[in-house]
Amino acid sequence: MDEKKLSSQVVKRLPRYYRYLSTLLQLGISRISSKDLGNRMGLTSSQVRQDFFCFGGNGLQGYGYDVGFLHQEIHKLLGLQHSHTMIIIGAGSLGHALAKHANFEKSGFKLAGIFDVKPELIGEKIRNVEVQPVDDLPDFLSKNPVDIAVLTVPENCAGEVARLVADLGVKALWNFSPVELMMPEDIIVENTHMIDCLMVLGYNLQEKSLREESLKEKP
Amino acid sequence: MDEKKLSSQVVKRLPRYYRYLSTLLQLGISRISSKDLGNRMGLTSSQVRQDFFCFGGNGLQGYGYDVGFLHQEIHKLLGLQHSHTMIIIGAGSLGHALAKHANFEKSGFKLAGIFDVKPELIGEKIRNVEVQPVDDLPDFLSKNPVDIAVLTVPENCAGEVARLVADLGVKALWNFSPVELMMPEDIIVENTHMIDCLMVLGYNLQEKSLREESLKEKP
Repeated sequence: MDEKKLSSQVVKRLPRYYRYLSTLLQLGISRISSKDLGNRMGLTSSQVRQDFFCFGGNGLQGYGYDVGFLHQEIHKLLGLQHSHTMIIIGAGSLGHALAKHANFEKSGFKLAGIFDVKPELIGEKIRNVEVQPVDDLPDFLSKNPVDIAVLTVPENCAGEVARLVADLGVKALWNFSPVELMMPEDIIVENTHMIDCLMVLGYNLQEKSLREESLKEKP
Repeated sequence: MDEKKLSSQVVKRLPRYYRYLSTLLQLGISRISSKDLGNRMGLTSSQVRQDFFCFGGNGLQGYGYDVGFLHQEIHKLLGLQHSHTMIIIGAGSLGHALAKHANFEKSGFKLAGIFDVKPELIGEKIRNVEVQPVDDLPDFLSKNPVDIAVLTVPENCAGEVARLVADLGVKALWNFSPVELMMPEDIIVENTHMIDCLMVLGYNLQEKSLREESLKEKP
């Protein structure tokens, strides 16, 4: 496997490639052309070839790509041979939903703790993990090293909570609050801003209706 | 506003620009350079200039961009002057969390209905919207036009539910199931694959630790 750093755009596509390749393997398909894979994924074949070339995947003319090999390489690239520990901060409805997500543990992301400030939530068990008070975070993190903190806290305290866990040694944050976190460069941040997805849908709906109107106007 | 189609990459950045510009307006900042905005957002100034140029935003040398004007243009581009109706299919914990999300309605995305197959969930009220049986979808959609269907259903029925609502006239899908939907071209699909975000974090964690190890090895 090539060790050069991949662009963040390529990295974002890796889980999708991984999912498609897993499906192909399940279907017993052992090789595929960049064109076929691109068609299934809504990408151009040249995009697929470029992406695979970035991490040393080379197709053969008239043969295509070896599905098993690519699957294995992307598995290694994504670090799926390792497991990661994570905590969820904010045991509201979104925190609950994430704690219950079955696929996370299957992919090696193990839930080590859930934290909240609300007294009525403390002690509740979600998938056998007990909700603990946020005040216990320093003690918990000193005993349990955690890779990822999932932030499902209200907007107005997201920054404070992010700085707290980063100071306590958590290396990566998955932020669901609709704010942009200003963190030191060595802290890895991944944002899932739900409203952004709706806004993109809103844009595409408007775009579609403008396109249809302009087609109607044409003679 | 220019009517040429924006690339999907630019469209994906629009909600973030909109959020930053909203914050700037709240802070009473009326103009900003591409460099300052890029720094805040982790983008290069040339990226910011290119993006704004796509929809007719032109900065002035030594003055920068007019925050209010850009904010207004992006508001229009995103279609935020219109409201959209949506339904949630799948009233599990993620469906609950999305139904309770306060920011959606504020941005014009109105929840019109929630549907599930489980008898024990039918009749439950989430934010004053009652969970209805999926079997009632045809009747509901014939009376209530809906723009967006949010799919928080299990993986094995996502495709079937997607085809059902598309056949019933829903134009856009927000899919949370970890499958890729194969839909007709005129159906707009936005995917939020939670596990993909964790995998990207896993990649970046591994990348960071490899980088740190290689620094240690150097004399």
